[in-house]
Amino acid sequence: MYRTVTCGELRIADVGKTVTLAGWVQRIRKMGGLTFIDLRDRYGLTQLAFNNDKLALAEGLGREFVLQVTGQVIERQSKNTQLPTGEIEIDVQSVNILNPALTPPFTIEDESDGGDDLRMKYRYLDLRRPIVRKNLELRHKMAFETRRYLDEQGFLEVETPVLVNSTPEGARDFVVPSRMNPGTFYALPQSPQTLKQLLMVSGFDRYFQIVKCFRDEDLRADRQPEFTQIDCEMSFIEQEDILNMFEGMIKHLFKTILNIDIPQLPRMTWADAMKYYGSDKPDTRFGMTFVELQDLFHAAEDKKAEEDKFSVFANANYIGGICAKGCATYTRKQLDALTDYVKRSQIGAKGMVYARVEEGGNVKSSVDKFYTQDVLQELKQAMNAEEGDLILILSGDDAMKTRKQLSELRLEMGRQLGLRDPKKFSCLWVIDFPMYEWSDEENRLMAMHHPFTSPKPEDIPLLDTDPASVRANAYDCVINGCEVGGGSIRIHEAGLQQKIFEILGFTPEQAQTKFGFLMNAFKYGAPPHGGLAYGLDRLVSIFAGLDSIRDCIAFPKNNQGKDVMLGAPSIIDQIQLDELQIDIRPQAK
Amino acid sequence: MYRTVTCGELRIADVGKTVTLAGWVQRIRKMGGLTFIDLRDRYGLTQLAFNNDKLALAEGLGREFVLQVTGQVIERQSKNTQLPTGEIEIDVQSVNILNPALTPPFTIEDESDGGDDLRMKYRYLDLRRPIVRKNLELRHKMAFETRRYLDEQGFLEVETPVLVNSTPEGARDFVVPSRMNPGTFYALPQSPQTLKQLLMVSGFDRYFQIVKCFRDEDLRADRQPEFTQIDCEMSFIEQEDILNMFEGMIKHLFKTILNIDIPQLPRMTWADAMKYYGSDKPDTRFGMTFVELQDLFHAAEDKKAEEDKFSVFANANYIGGICAKGCATYTRKQLDALTDYVKRSQIGAKGMVYARVEEGGNVKSSVDKFYTQDVLQELKQAMNAEEGDLILILSGDDAMKTRKQLSELRLEMGRQLGLRDPKKFSCLWVIDFPMYEWSDEENRLMAMHHPFTSPKPEDIPLLDTDPASVRANAYDCVINGCEVGGGSIRIHEAGLQQKIFEILGFTPEQAQTKFGFLMNAFKYGAPPHGGLAYGLDRLVSIFAGLDSIRDCIAFPKNNQGKDVMLGAPSIIDQIQLDELQIDIRPQAK
Repeated sequence: MYRTVTCGELRIADVGKTVTLAGWVQRIRKMGGLTFIDLRDRYGLTQLAFNNDKLALAEGLGREFVLQVTGQVIERQSKNTQLPTGEIEIDVQSVNILNPALTPPFTIEDESDGGDDLRMKYRYLDLRRPIVRKNLELRHKMAFETRRYLDEQGFLEVETPVLVNSTPEGARDFVVPSRMNPGTFYALPQSPQTLKQLLMVSGFDRYFQIVKCFRDEDLRADRQPEFTQIDCEMSFIEQEDILNMFEGMIKHLFKTILNIDIPQLPRMTWADAMKYYGSDKPDTRFGMTFVELQDLFHAAEDKKAEEDKFSVFANANYIGGICAKGCATYTRKQLDALTDYVKRSQIGAKGMVYARVEEGGNVKSSVDKFYTQDVLQELKQAMNAEEGDLILILSGDDAMKTRKQLSELRLEMGRQLGLRDPKKFSCLWVIDFPMYEWSDEENRLMAMHHPFTSPKPEDIPLLDTDPASVRANAYDCVINGCEVGGGSIRIHEAGLQQKIFEILGFTPEQAQTKFGFLMNAFKYGAPPHGGLAYGLDRLVSIFAGLDSIRDCIAFPKNNQGKDVMLGAPSIIDQIQLDELQIDIRPQAK
Repeated sequence: MYRTVTCGELRIADVGKTVTLAGWVQRIRKMGGLTFIDLRDRYGLTQLAFNNDKLALAEGLGREFVLQVTGQVIERQSKNTQLPTGEIEIDVQSVNILNPALTPPFTIEDESDGGDDLRMKYRYLDLRRPIVRKNLELRHKMAFETRRYLDEQGFLEVETPVLVNSTPEGARDFVVPSRMNPGTFYALPQSPQTLKQLLMVSGFDRYFQIVKCFRDEDLRADRQPEFTQIDCEMSFIEQEDILNMFEGMIKHLFKTILNIDIPQLPRMTWADAMKYYGSDKPDTRFGMTFVELQDLFHAAEDKKAEEDKFSVFANANYIGGICAKGCATYTRKQLDALTDYVKRSQIGAKGMVYARVEEGGNVKSSVDKFYTQDVLQELKQAMNAEEGDLILILSGDDAMKTRKQLSELRLEMGRQLGLRDPKKFSCLWVIDFPMYEWSDEENRLMAMHHPFTSPKPEDIPLLDTDPASVRANAYDCVINGCEVGGGSIRIHEAGLQQKIFEILGFTPEQAQTKFGFLMNAFKYGAPPHGGLAYGLDRLVSIFAGLDSIRDCIAFPKNNQGKDVMLGAPSIIDQIQLDELQIDIRPQAK
């Protein structure tokens, strides 16, 4: 050992002891006949004092030098109450330079002066910043507590292979050419979905795995080509059992990691989530729920002559409003900015209607010329608005699209009003997802979750008559507007599975080609089973109060899928291509 | 929940309770007016009794059907003391067939009638066999206890990326073509070696990870293309600290998993391991250590006339013997078989000399015509042999090669004598490995561990004068003749690293190309550090008393690197090749 104590542990009670510390030079301050150095390691900072004849020992030292220092613990003259070690310092007796350091390209402080690209290139220096390291310490603790909880509940962690087979369904696979079997490829798993279902067929009963998964997708902001799932599956259970088990896990994590007691998770149907929040992952840290206004406005329009009608509302299938408490003071400029916000191409609203509830209760709106004060008072009542509130309204032909636009407006208002505090947590289950969603691209119903998801038993008769209305035994766990986990009860009956495939438009032959080995396994006695998967990266980022998952990952990739520190991906040797018997096509310049 | 109890938990105290169980039909026995079914789940077996009017409920059921059964717990007439639930049975009241099953292609018993290939194809059925499932339960427990120990010691588990860059040193990489960066490839990590060293540069201080690693090697028996390491690294430590920390981990695992108290691990130098066992991973469950006999026999030869010499020994640089206690009774046939064994091409000895110590102390050898009884008595004394013992001797020009041959003979004798009991454990550290080994192929010294391994400080002067004799701060953890872990103290000084590269024959430019990003990182303040990695697959197989690692892996690959259940690797779609902009070369038929 190069040290007797770490840089985080000395306290006033240690005064008088002779100790040896090792760490990095964080800061050097020269004050006349005295030099102070802050020595940093993972555990904290300790101040070193170089006095009198020891002053020369501090000469030539620079930021990030690695030192081994021996000295006596003494009480500080001016104490630092912000620092756990702030009451003491080390009266340095000897210094051993374990390694010198070049001046780092950016400051190693919580607030660094390095840009994203520079910090990624020198990620090993970026990781020295306590704020980044703390995220990874949190990640370790969360993974550990997840394992502890699941172990206590009788789950077995089983490692499934990374070199699997390519499946044509789902996202794009990363593939690995096989040298021993030329012309063939392994694929990296998008998730261990089929393998965990096989483990249920094997009788493993309760399985989990904290596991890397891979998707070769064009990277939107905050997606990574490799990501980590807490992947779980149980047998002989119903949806209720899964929800209770994993509600327990989330509570365990909040309690052990943040010491927060989370109340029982509310359950919201997918239909209600869409109706009241316009999102299947509602941010329930604040209200501002949607009120549907089409009946109110259509009734008003019906009473008007054709030339007096407000065609935007008169022709809208859906009109929805939110009420922003106390925002009647919003200026015209602020409201124009909100209108511009919802008209951005990513959101796509045509416009926004607003109404202020003024002092005395009068309503002043951007559509005053179309509606009487009576109608506007009805609006006020419908919105449950009071003096000083601001009502914001979007409308459109397509209820689903308009709700999504209104959801974006709601989230933006929540942000502006400080209602989305990253230190406040609101968790819920969204349940009863639809089995299918229509794909314009494929011109068929697509499985919303995946083709093995079980319909709700009471909706099974609808499979024949109205499959689009069938609800699934599928559920998402949502925290602060993020889907942190999701899963479903799986189909375990061959007949029902066959019918689902038919509805998805697969012939029996196609179903066999795509999902044959799982279907075959099911013939040998599959138990009723279901499960879910949490995204560990996302879960950690929420616990850390971060917007991005990137700072919860030790060595993340950038939006081009590159690790600029490692220089990956890179060109490989011709001999490697020859062994794999593949060729790279000539690249267009 | 489909059950109120599992198939493993009912005891005599539960008699009278009405319970619901779910599981698989293990066995059906019809005995006149009575049918018994053993119902199986992960937790055990419970006997179901179908009586009187319930007899019909058992009709049509078959092996591996999945049942939900309700009934009353009753005391058994004939108890089975082998089974934890053997005192009770279920008086069945109702049966719900959750899923029928085809007859499995082999019996789901600890002793199955299925061959390897068949069981691999239906691995999900093979995994139903309790003997296989228990190995994976053991693996879960060992991984969990490993994490518990390391967490308690302040280690952080940090996930390193799976998509990294290809490194030309070491084994062959699996590579992954990048679609977003055509013409370039990721590589799958052979180990997180450089990344964990970067984490030390980052100040993580104590890192570990239970992590998949990948090597595209031709698969010898009991190698897998993907395998799991317990990968660890520490900063500000010396070799002694690492040995103590991980000796603690091994003791913790033996204690918590097998309830065995392992004594302090002996330390053996690599030189002694080679001298006394002919192996850097000696099986120390038994003695039978080597005795060097060249001085004894050369002295005897020196006294003889040229024509009387035994040229095999006279010309051998190395002559080594082992003493097999009590084996003087070995027949000529047994001894011939041993000779054949060491002459196999995999071992390559030219022949074997033996000597029996007969009743009364006389020595009778296969080389009696060359040596006097006096010489043979000297041999007996040197070998510390007694009446009834058998001495086996190999000789050769090359001491190292001959020792390896003698090691194989020793292991075979240990096996024949039952000295290699898989339920007995003998652990040790092998230390002081050489820094280099000579490569005839490359005609240069090669790093025995890897090029970042630190030499022993006292041997640094030898780097200039006799590099081949320099010992490394490298160590292996050996259990029962298997290297289960190994590591080293790393070089953290740029100047020493430069010298090591020179000795390995790298120009500064080559060193920069191969190891540049790690070398650059070291310029910014690298702490003294070191670590090691355990092979989890091997460690589990030793704890399970298995010869092969394959049965400790849920879904292993065969010797052609194939997963015959998944059908991986497989042909991929042309569209995937087009997206990746690669082509497969036409295959020779």
